[in-house]
Amino acid sequence: MPRIARWERVRRTAAALFARNGFAAASVSQLARQARLSKPGIYYHVRDKEELLLRICQSTMTALLESARTAAAGAGPEPAEQLRCVIRAHAAHYWRHSADLVILFGQMRYLSPARQRPVVALERAYLDLVRSILRAGQRRGHFRRVDATVAAFSLFATLNTLDGWYDPRGRLGREALVAEVERLYLEGLGGPTRARRGRRAPAGQST
Amino acid sequence: MPRIARWERVRRTAAALFARNGFAAASVSQLARQARLSKPGIYYHVRDKEELLLRICQSTMTALLESARTAAAGAGPEPAEQLRCVIRAHAAHYWRHSADLVILFGQMRYLSPARQRPVVALERAYLDLVRSILRAGQRRGHFRRVDATVAAFSLFATLNTLDGWYDPRGRLGREALVAEVERLYLEGLGGPTRARRGRRAPAGQST
Repeated sequence: MPRIARWERVRRTAAALFARNGFAAASVSQLARQARLSKPGIYYHVRDKEELLLRICQSTMTALLESARTAAAGAGPEPAEQLRCVIRAHAAHYWRHSADLVILFGQMRYLSPARQRPVVALERAYLDLVRSILRAGQRRGHFRRVDATVAAFSLFATLNTLDGWYDPRGRLGREALVAEVERLYLEGLGGPTRARRGRRAPAGQST
Repeated sequence: MPRIARWERVRRTAAALFARNGFAAASVSQLARQARLSKPGIYYHVRDKEELLLRICQSTMTALLESARTAAAGAGPEPAEQLRCVIRAHAAHYWRHSADLVILFGQMRYLSPARQRPVVALERAYLDLVRSILRAGQRRGHFRRVDATVAAFSLFATLNTLDGWYDPRGRLGREALVAEVERLYLEGLGGPTRARRGRRAPAGQST
């Protein structure tokens, strides 16, 4: 089997194992068995279990960031539309690679601070991308001046925990779910009061 | 040491151990050592490691639900104010008991389906509390008709991952952070555009 295909098998088996059992409980022997390789066959690709985790986190975050950048770049000049496209791309990526994302967001803490650094840099780049969209929308008066960092992290939290609560066999299809997330962030809960201009806004809900 | 105090020590030590190493990697021997008890001393309180996890999840979710119910009940009749009070109570609870909540949200999946059931029932009760506030607000025309389930889970995702990104030594104090979360959910990002339209319309200024 070519080296790249074997590495891909190691990576995928490790991701499934870490996602199922957790990084701390998984062993290289277990991984070797499941990937049908010898332990030296694993160590040909990585120095240790932690390097495997690092490479999963790094490639996952790189791919997520790339898909968001492509989505934002293809969305035209309107920040609201850019944000919608990033939300859709993130959700689509999440569903295609949910084991990888479970590891990235749940197990990165097992990496040493030095090894977390390159992944944190990618996360920071993603955060900056979303914040720059939010701030552009705020400058143009399209977005309310909610703290952009809080809004970005809240959005990530929502999109990165879909697996924990969303049932694709349930009432809402995936597209409808993503559309609701878009409305929630772009329009908020407290809209109708302001929209019904004839009505008086209750205290605390003034624009 | 009285039995209850000893159980409390076991519980707290187990919570710290699970939060740090993960449930799968933690052992009862390790726990006994750290709690300065014998292994039989641990088994006096619980049948196995999984029962320990169950009791941590159950008591944590019970306390979180109770604090949210108390907050909602004390908030008066306005759904927006009820939601604000629940958000504040949840965040306050989260900061007081973050190790417990990290376990509840990150490690409950290690429980067997039968043992997850009572915890899931408590989570469902919390979900119902928040949805009933959202739907009451929608019926009164104070809240936009965003899907209440999606909005509730998004809010929980935001509040339950604060530890992952919020730095209390940073720019925003805890109160300011919670105020931004309230604004994000109650007002949304896309407010100002509509507000400007409202300002142009004389009917919008009626008081």
